[in-house]
Amino acid sequence: MTNTTEGQHIASAFDRDLEQVTALIVKMGGLVEVAILDGAKSLETRDLELAEQVREADKRIDTLEEQINDVATTIIARRAPVATDLRIILSVLRISSNLERVGDYAKNMAKRTSVLAEMPRMNGSEAGLRRMAKEVQEMLKDVLDAFIRRDVQLAEDVRSRDLDVDQMYNALFREFLTFMMEDPRNITACMHLHFIAKNVERMGDHVTNIAEQVIYLVTGEHPEEGRPKGDRTPFVTEEGV
Amino acid sequence: MTNTTEGQHIASAFDRDLEQVTALIVKMGGLVEVAILDGAKSLETRDLELAEQVREADKRIDTLEEQINDVATTIIARRAPVATDLRIILSVLRISSNLERVGDYAKNMAKRTSVLAEMPRMNGSEAGLRRMAKEVQEMLKDVLDAFIRRDVQLAEDVRSRDLDVDQMYNALFREFLTFMMEDPRNITACMHLHFIAKNVERMGDHVTNIAEQVIYLVTGEHPEEGRPKGDRTPFVTEEGV
Repeated sequence: MTNTTEGQHIASAFDRDLEQVTALIVKMGGLVEVAILDGAKSLETRDLELAEQVREADKRIDTLEEQINDVATTIIARRAPVATDLRIILSVLRISSNLERVGDYAKNMAKRTSVLAEMPRMNGSEAGLRRMAKEVQEMLKDVLDAFIRRDVQLAEDVRSRDLDVDQMYNALFREFLTFMMEDPRNITACMHLHFIAKNVERMGDHVTNIAEQVIYLVTGEHPEEGRPKGDRTPFVTEEGV
Repeated sequence: MTNTTEGQHIASAFDRDLEQVTALIVKMGGLVEVAILDGAKSLETRDLELAEQVREADKRIDTLEEQINDVATTIIARRAPVATDLRIILSVLRISSNLERVGDYAKNMAKRTSVLAEMPRMNGSEAGLRRMAKEVQEMLKDVLDAFIRRDVQLAEDVRSRDLDVDQMYNALFREFLTFMMEDPRNITACMHLHFIAKNVERMGDHVTNIAEQVIYLVTGEHPEEGRPKGDRTPFVTEEGV
């Protein structure tokens, strides 16, 4: 039934399809990177116009996710991929879903700009959040490179950098607790900032998920457990603050 | 190439595969339902042993997700489904991924039991959290029924009930703000409880995602936008409390 020539023909048709969907992932990833940086910047500079741009950009991100879903589904239906090819195309679906979530968190960060603009500034916390967001954006940039180049080493590197993001989050969490205890008038602003910090930390988790998808699609093995995942608020007691 | 008999043969082989993977989804969903209820109960009754059971159960939930991924991938590779069949099998992957997230949030709720057990009780908030968790568990039960029976009406119903969960969350958020402002010694406990409340609200979002998958797999149309999604902490200012 299948001879080499036909096998190669099918493979290269799949490769062309894959290039198309990879280009969409790259485009989507680029928009998400900008959203992370602009979301954090709008918060720090209290720039309501920039915040509105981030919210608008999220619609384009959502549309790209739908487009990627459609293209990937069509590829599966048309090419009936198996083995590695199927693994790649299913990974593409998971990557776009993680990108969408990161974009959503960036939008939510921007949405809080208008509320926080009315509240007292928390000494440097906004700059701390921006540094944390910058770290996540760089991880995202690298994990997309790792995806394109099928670079397991780089994906592992991104995965390990998530610990830095967690540490930045823990430092901010302690800072917010201190501000709230110092002055009850800081409580509402700190609740919002804490939420944003947690959302940036979750962005890092989603980027790490993408890194694990890259490792899986290249090696066929899920990276071993051991990465702390999910909700990792430090269990600070009042005595510990 | 294909005659009716062969077409029917392929369809029924796919149907048998689908039954197998549906049974796994039902099993996984059942474990997640128990995790939601037990997580909230362990928190309210400060039952550390029950909390530990929830953490253990999460491993079984994660294993089931992997199993579902493997079976679904094998079905795609072996049956090369197209059109509705492909849509169903891709929906299964998304449903299991959402179930895994809900299980993760339940585990995180249980994990906080030991920390909160050392802190002052917040007048009735734990009971409020349990009611919220119960609502989400019932939504999950119904959405799994909707999935099995391909019941769009029930899925729409679940989708609309997410608003109740959001309202319960908003009420708790205001309660926590008040407790924190009344007494700074409540701040740490309220930060944890607030997190749990937000996580239960996110569980509701994931159940709603599943409802939307059910609607999509039956109708082939994504339900229209209009559901508020993602991060919806009420933008309460201090004046508003």
